[in-house]
Amino acid sequence: MLRIGALERLVHQLNRLPGVGPKTAQRLAYQILREPDLSTGLQEALIAVRESIHQCNVCFSYTDEPSICRYCADHARRTDVLCIVEEPSDIVRIESSGAFRGRYHVLHGAISPLDNIGPDDLKIRELLERIEESRAVGDVTPGISEIILALDPDLEGDTTVLYLAKVLGERGLKVTRIASGVPLGSDIDYVDDRTLGRALENRVEL
Amino acid sequence: MLRIGALERLVHQLNRLPGVGPKTAQRLAYQILREPDLSTGLQEALIAVRESIHQCNVCFSYTDEPSICRYCADHARRTDVLCIVEEPSDIVRIESSGAFRGRYHVLHGAISPLDNIGPDDLKIRELLERIEESRAVGDVTPGISEIILALDPDLEGDTTVLYLAKVLGERGLKVTRIASGVPLGSDIDYVDDRTLGRALENRVEL
Repeated sequence: MLRIGALERLVHQLNRLPGVGPKTAQRLAYQILREPDLSTGLQEALIAVRESIHQCNVCFSYTDEPSICRYCADHARRTDVLCIVEEPSDIVRIESSGAFRGRYHVLHGAISPLDNIGPDDLKIRELLERIEESRAVGDVTPGISEIILALDPDLEGDTTVLYLAKVLGERGLKVTRIASGVPLGSDIDYVDDRTLGRALENRVEL
Repeated sequence: MLRIGALERLVHQLNRLPGVGPKTAQRLAYQILREPDLSTGLQEALIAVRESIHQCNVCFSYTDEPSICRYCADHARRTDVLCIVEEPSDIVRIESSGAFRGRYHVLHGAISPLDNIGPDDLKIRELLERIEESRAVGDVTPGISEIILALDPDLEGDTTVLYLAKVLGERGLKVTRIASGVPLGSDIDYVDDRTLGRALENRVEL
């Protein structure tokens, strides 16, 4: 690494990106030095993202609309079913499945005691307020009555599901979680034990 | 991918970095959105690099000094031996070997007809001028008399070596190339055929 302060600082910043180690960060920094055009492009894109993208006031997904995102603004969607996801990017996956036409709510993470992330660090208070408001008397659209938890089937997701099932259940809402099991097109021979165990446990009556 | 213009443009720019594919670019962009601090850090580092780093007027390595880099400014180094490298980062590798204490010259690439890179696209004209100037009568420091070519042992490096050996040889300079052969600590059983062939060809008398 050439001992130039500004270059070392750029490597340090690139190194903070997920999956970018010190060696990769150096390679990226040299490429940026070599291509001034790439440096300008990145800078402008970073500024544009920072200036134009913010969280939706209702579901906390990302949007560049003034206050609410296009899913929250879409009147063709059902207002009584809410799908809870960990990250805004999860919405895109669910949308492309075409199997859901309700509204979303983004938690921005999952409960993880190991990382010191508790319920207060997620958009759970906002979720409860949103449900409360939707049920207010006099509202013309039907209030939220069903919650689908589309959280990752890992330790953090499971913890969050247990927590939400409790607090939402107390409010008389129907709470479901997306099914875990054998992926379509896969070979049972190659599916891991825990997934197969879950698939057996959650077997569906025909 | 969320359909937000600014986000898509950031992904496009990140995708231009070497080794960063579309999926990785998306992951990086989401992380940047999640951490405003990272976005600011990157932006500032990019601006600092652009404003403070330029090419050395003598050897064309990168520097943040006003006109010449610290290697060119170091009077303890020999001025009669010049080591030619492809990229500024190669200087760091040679320095850490501790086996060279002369001056450097960076070509910024190698001759590659496939990529349309000819001698005029590299700092070769500047190299010849530099040699000429160093030999000017009246200069107190000894003029450049030996050139070490530390270019990559690949097709482009080999082509550049052939070209430089010719033009520099015509000027009565001693031209050498760093040795290719079996890396220290390696097992001959696992060394590839071409490397072993080169090691036999360039065998050293004891």
